[in-house]
Amino acid sequence: MKRIFALLAILSSLDAFPLDEIVKKEEFKLGSYTTVSGKTIPEVRFGYETYGKLNAEKSNAILIAHYFTGNSHAAGKYAASDAGPGYWDGIIGSGKALDTDKYFIIAVDSLVNLTPGEPTTITTGPASRNPKTKRPYGMGFPLVGVRDFVNVQKRLVDSLGIKKLLAVTGASGGAAQAMEYAVAFPKEVGKVIAVIGPGLSLPPYTIALLDLWSAPILLDPKWSKGQYYGKTAPLAGLTESLKLITHSSVSFDWAQTVGGGFESDSRAPLTAYEHRYAIEALLQTRGEARASKIDANSLLYMAKAIQSFNVENETSALAAEVLFIPVRSDLIFPPELSVAAARTLCTKGKKAMVSVLETTGGHLDGLLKIAEAATPITQFLNGQLKSCP
Amino acid sequence: MKRIFALLAILSSLDAFPLDEIVKKEEFKLGSYTTVSGKTIPEVRFGYETYGKLNAEKSNAILIAHYFTGNSHAAGKYAASDAGPGYWDGIIGSGKALDTDKYFIIAVDSLVNLTPGEPTTITTGPASRNPKTKRPYGMGFPLVGVRDFVNVQKRLVDSLGIKKLLAVTGASGGAAQAMEYAVAFPKEVGKVIAVIGPGLSLPPYTIALLDLWSAPILLDPKWSKGQYYGKTAPLAGLTESLKLITHSSVSFDWAQTVGGGFESDSRAPLTAYEHRYAIEALLQTRGEARASKIDANSLLYMAKAIQSFNVENETSALAAEVLFIPVRSDLIFPPELSVAAARTLCTKGKKAMVSVLETTGGHLDGLLKIAEAATPITQFLNGQLKSCP
Repeated sequence: MKRIFALLAILSSLDAFPLDEIVKKEEFKLGSYTTVSGKTIPEVRFGYETYGKLNAEKSNAILIAHYFTGNSHAAGKYAASDAGPGYWDGIIGSGKALDTDKYFIIAVDSLVNLTPGEPTTITTGPASRNPKTKRPYGMGFPLVGVRDFVNVQKRLVDSLGIKKLLAVTGASGGAAQAMEYAVAFPKEVGKVIAVIGPGLSLPPYTIALLDLWSAPILLDPKWSKGQYYGKTAPLAGLTESLKLITHSSVSFDWAQTVGGGFESDSRAPLTAYEHRYAIEALLQTRGEARASKIDANSLLYMAKAIQSFNVENETSALAAEVLFIPVRSDLIFPPELSVAAARTLCTKGKKAMVSVLETTGGHLDGLLKIAEAATPITQFLNGQLKSCP
Repeated sequence: MKRIFALLAILSSLDAFPLDEIVKKEEFKLGSYTTVSGKTIPEVRFGYETYGKLNAEKSNAILIAHYFTGNSHAAGKYAASDAGPGYWDGIIGSGKALDTDKYFIIAVDSLVNLTPGEPTTITTGPASRNPKTKRPYGMGFPLVGVRDFVNVQKRLVDSLGIKKLLAVTGASGGAAQAMEYAVAFPKEVGKVIAVIGPGLSLPPYTIALLDLWSAPILLDPKWSKGQYYGKTAPLAGLTESLKLITHSSVSFDWAQTVGGGFESDSRAPLTAYEHRYAIEALLQTRGEARASKIDANSLLYMAKAIQSFNVENETSALAAEVLFIPVRSDLIFPPELSVAAARTLCTKGKKAMVSVLETTGGHLDGLLKIAEAATPITQFLNGQLKSCP
């Protein structure tokens, strides 16, 4: 098991010559926001980080939205002693694909972010204090969708005086946000880079998967209909959710590197029900470690938000060029979804293209192996990629 | 939703010109059996069905082991008024691939079958009465593996006076049993037909998946460490398990036929947490319907048993020719596993071949679309398929 963690660490580090700056989390206070569904959230705030410098014309900004369990820490370190840099450090920095010598990168925390308790996340969601009751909202927080995510991001972009984003990008749920932003504000987005994303809508298979990811939390009696704040969190259910999420995010080949062995040679799985295989133990250990950092209600809200992504009927206004970067071995959003989305856009006279990351690690390679997509990203930003057949 | 059920019914019926005989469940009483792990089960019994006639030489018998949630009802009807025939009726019957004019088919109920309460299943497992305590075993039932499954099947085959099976076959977990049988009793098996199977061992990815399938049951407080007999069964957890199993067993394309719509147009999913998408509602309805027929502990035991399948180091004795029939869109046991297994066997001088079912419905097509594999099965049984490259 240690070997696997070591392997993952090496894989990450290979991609990562850390961004050569110490980064810090900024906070954006939006005030009141009324959701697409008509509910008002009185005090919205969220975090963001920036890398590089905004030019005088304010024309070099690239917005990054984060994935399901992520946050706005996309690059660099908060202190030289940090264990590792942000998740997309492999493509963010001087001379990298998202070149901080040329671009001003803004990475944002989403609404209902899963780690509201982490010092590196600032978000507004079910774990936030409801100013009316002075207690956490719990399941009383208004439901939000991907359109709400990008509506509040737009307010930050406006506040920075940026009239048009050079590009919007993100991985997985972040790719959905990038596409949603470009459709919601078509004149204010030049390009979209959708990495390991769903295409133009959540496929029904993944809509169901998000429900299945949520289910273990609801089964845990400690969830208490979301009223667990100040009490015991539903960690057992949350751990099962996170095990399932990890399982969906890897691949058969990845699991093969763990192998079919037992957790312990002296504890054969057929000699006692609790005796496990190494891969079960690995997912359990990782699930438990992550559960302590994640808010269960926020996971439920994020799942609901991502399920809502569907811009199939809104693409006619789209002005941005779109580069889809799926991963060949992705089991959550297989590359066929990106190919179909690009075909649809091209049929409608838009400019779209696909560059498949030919790696074997599954969905997570959109984070761990992102440096391998540096060339198509660079070429796309430079206008050198050929769009549509 | 009704449309989907209707579609599934049509898909099944297309394959199914029912076996032209009324079938009945037989019971085999084995007496005491000691598991590979050394635990003794005092009174083992299981059900079976036969189709066709055993010839005088007793050389025309084909054994069928069943899949995870299945039982021995592989073909025909118990009464003309039955809603449908057994699950592989599309290839079992007069003139079909498993031709009852030529072959004597024996379909068996496995140990720890998931539906011990159904009148059409006879099995021995955690829901069985422990003769010592006069109460159901619960989690006190000895753990069993795939080798135990085939050991007891062998006793039935012996009791029928059959010295050598013409073939052993099965879908999914049944394919694992077929391969295990051929390795455990190499001189007594002529051919193996492994449909939607794992190859020569459970891939680690699927070992983990079986754990995830089990987890919701353990989270349900009504599970009570397996002591729910005579009380309320853990139906909520079991329903989530079965939703997950169905989700694993279908495909992106299958889900696309359900679509991304809401369960009800007046209940948009972002207006209340309990408002759902059509595909969530469909999985929920099916899960609940199946949960009422399934024993939760038996599901845990079956998962543990299937995880144990691994004959990678035992193939040298194998004498049988093997035909693997994976489904192109299978997300549980992708066709690459069958291809790798065949390659391994061929490298070792065995006769193996692969015929991929090019359908889009996922794992379940190994049941629903089995009739489309009739030709390779017929050719394989007639010795007309070319083995190894």
